Amino acid sequence: MSHPIPPGTRDVLPDEMLELRELTEGLRSTFGNAGYGEVWTPTLEYEETLRTGDAGGAGAGYRLFDEKGEVLALRSDMTIPIARVVATRLGETEPPLRLCYFGHAYRAAERRTAELREFLQGGIELIGLPGAQGEAEVIALTEDALDRAGLRRHRVGVGDGTLFDRLLDDADVPEEARGELVGCLSARDLVGLERRVDLLGLSAATRNRLVELPSLRGGAEVLERAGGEAVDNLRELHELLAERGAADRVIFDLGLLRQLGYYTGPVFEVYDPAVGFALGGGGRYDELIGRFGRPLVACGMALDVGRVHLAQAAEERLR
Amino acid sequence: MSHPIPPGTRDVLPDEMLELRELTEGLRSTFGNAGYGEVWTPTLEYEETLRTGDAGGAGAGYRLFDEKGEVLALRSDMTIPIARVVATRLGETEPPLRLCYFGHAYRAAERRTAELREFLQGGIELIGLPGAQGEAEVIALTEDALDRAGLRRHRVGVGDGTLFDRLLDDADVPEEARGELVGCLSARDLVGLERRVDLLGLSAATRNRLVELPSLRGGAEVLERAGGEAVDNLRELHELLAERGAADRVIFDLGLLRQLGYYTGPVFEVYDPAVGFALGGGGRYDELIGRFGRPLVACGMALDVGRVHLAQAAEERLR
Repeated sequence: MSHPIPPGTRDVLPDEMLELRELTEGLRSTFGNAGYGEVWTPTLEYEETLRTGDAGGAGAGYRLFDEKGEVLALRSDMTIPIARVVATRLGETEPPLRLCYFGHAYRAAERRTAELREFLQGGIELIGLPGAQGEAEVIALTEDALDRAGLRRHRVGVGDGTLFDRLLDDADVPEEARGELVGCLSARDLVGLERRVDLLGLSAATRNRLVELPSLRGGAEVLERAGGEAVDNLRELHELLAERGAADRVIFDLGLLRQLGYYTGPVFEVYDPAVGFALGGGGRYDELIGRFGRPLVACGMALDVGRVHLAQAAEERLR
Repeated sequence: MSHPIPPGTRDVLPDEMLELRELTEGLRSTFGNAGYGEVWTPTLEYEETLRTGDAGGAGAGYRLFDEKGEVLALRSDMTIPIARVVATRLGETEPPLRLCYFGHAYRAAERRTAELREFLQGGIELIGLPGAQGEAEVIALTEDALDRAGLRRHRVGVGDGTLFDRLLDDADVPEEARGELVGCLSARDLVGLERRVDLLGLSAATRNRLVELPSLRGGAEVLERAGGEAVDNLRELHELLAERGAADRVIFDLGLLRQLGYYTGPVFEVYDPAVGFALGGGGRYDELIGRFGRPLVACGMALDVGRVHLAQAAEERLR
C-alpha cells in the first residue's frame, strides 16, 4: 500500500519543520519590527473575488462548488485577498497600511518545473505609499529579512512591468503582434524576440530600443544606458535604495516581466545562487485595491518560504 | 461592493492575529518540550486516503477533481493524514512516535451552530504507546498546554467510545435498533434514549444499565458507581492521571461519544466555561494506522485554536 499524496504537495517531517518554523518566525519578527501586522484570510474564496483582483490568474487555481452551487477557489496568492480585506474589513484604517502574512497558496497545475502546487508564502504589503518611496521600503525590508535569515548571496531583480508595453506603444506595434513578443520576453527568449521584432519593419532606432532595452541587466549603470525618461521611476528607486544602503543587492533587469495581471509599475524578483528558481517576487499594484472599491496605491513582495529555506540550508553548508 | 467571504470562514486582523500567534507558539513550545515533533501534511489529499482512514467522515469535506479526474478533498482533520505519514514516510521510525501539528482543517458544511468551515487545529498524536499509559500522557499534556496558555477553568471530559456498543452487545440489542439509540446518546438526549430502551423489552437490570451508565458524569466516584469490568480501562487511566497530578481536571462522562469513526477506546473532550463548545477532543484509535499498512496503536488530541483563544481572552478579562 503506497498511499500517495497529490503531485506538487509535500509531507514535512519534524527536523525540516523545526527549521521552517524558525525561518518563518524570524521573517515574521523582522516584518513585525518594521510595523507590518500579520493578517490571515480564508484558504477558500469565492472565485468571483479572485477574478475581481486578476481576471486572468483565477483560472490557474483549484476550483470547487459549495452546497449552493457557488464556485469557490483555493487562493493562488495572498495579495488579492489582502486587497479585499483592505477595502472591506480595514476600510476605515487610514493609510499607509503595513501588512504581512504567512499562508499556503495553491496552483492546480505546475506552471514550471519544480513548482509545487501547495507552497508556503510569507510576504508584505505596503498600502498607500506611492512610487519609489514604497518600493524602496519593500525591497529594503525583504533584503533585511533574508539577511537575518542567514542568506548572504541573495539579489533582488528590479524591472518595470509596464516598460515593454510602453516601448510597444511608442513603436506603434499593432495589438495582434504583441502577444508573441511578450511571450518571448516572458520566456527570456531574447533571440526569438529579436527575430520577431525584425519582421515588424520598424526604423532602426525603434527596433534597437525594442530589442536592446529588455536585454539590459546589471547595476545602476543599466539605468544610464537605457537613457530617456522610460526608466526615470527606477532611477529614483535606485537613489532611495542607495540612501538606505540597500542598493548593492539590486540587479536592474529591464526585461523582467511578472506573470500576474495586477502589476502597474516596478516589479521585483528575489534570487539566490543556491536555488534555481526565484525565491519570491512582487511589485507595485496601484489599481488592485480600487477594484474592491477603495482606490489606494500599493506594492508588496511574497517570498516562497520553502525556497528561502533551501537557500538558507545551502548557505549553512558553505560555512 | 461587499465582496463577501464564504460562510464559515474568517479574516483575521493584526491584533487578533498577534494573540493567535502567541497562543500557537506557546502550544507548540509545550508540545515540543514534551518531545512532540511537528509535522505538516498537504491541505489536499486524495479522497481515497481520507476514506481509508474513516469511511464515514470523508463525505463531510470539500471535494474537487484534479486535472486527471481524481477526487481530492480538503483534509477534515490531521489525524488521518498523520496516520498515513506514520505508515509511509515514517515507516522506519521505531515507536513510540510523538508528533504534533498546527494546520487548518475543513468541513463543507456546519455540523453544529457556530462551527466554522475552516478552523485552525493544534494537536498531538502519541503512537505506539498502548492503553491508559498513552491516554494519560495525552490528557496530562493537553491540560499542561492549556494551563500555560493561561486557562484556569478548563476540564477534560473522558469517556469510552466503545462502552455503549459493548452495553448494546451485552444486552443483545439487535443491530437495526442501535442507530436510533446511538443517535439519542450523540445528541445527549437521555430522555429519548430511555424511552427507546424501554421499548426493547429488556430485563430491568439490563435496561437500567443501558440507561444509567451513559448518564453517569463526574469525578472518579462515577467509575465506582459504574461497577463491573466495563470501565476498568478508565479506572486505570484515572490512577495514572492521579499519579501525574492531572486527575483533578478530568470529568468522567460515560455517555461521551465522539463522531469520528476511528476511535477504539477512551475518548476525550476539552471544555471551558467561557466557551459554549468543546475546545477540542480526541481519543484512542488503535486500528487507524493499521489501515495504512502499519499496525500501531495510538491516541491523540486536537485543540481548536480559535476556541482556546476565546477561552484565553475570557480568562484575561476575569483577572
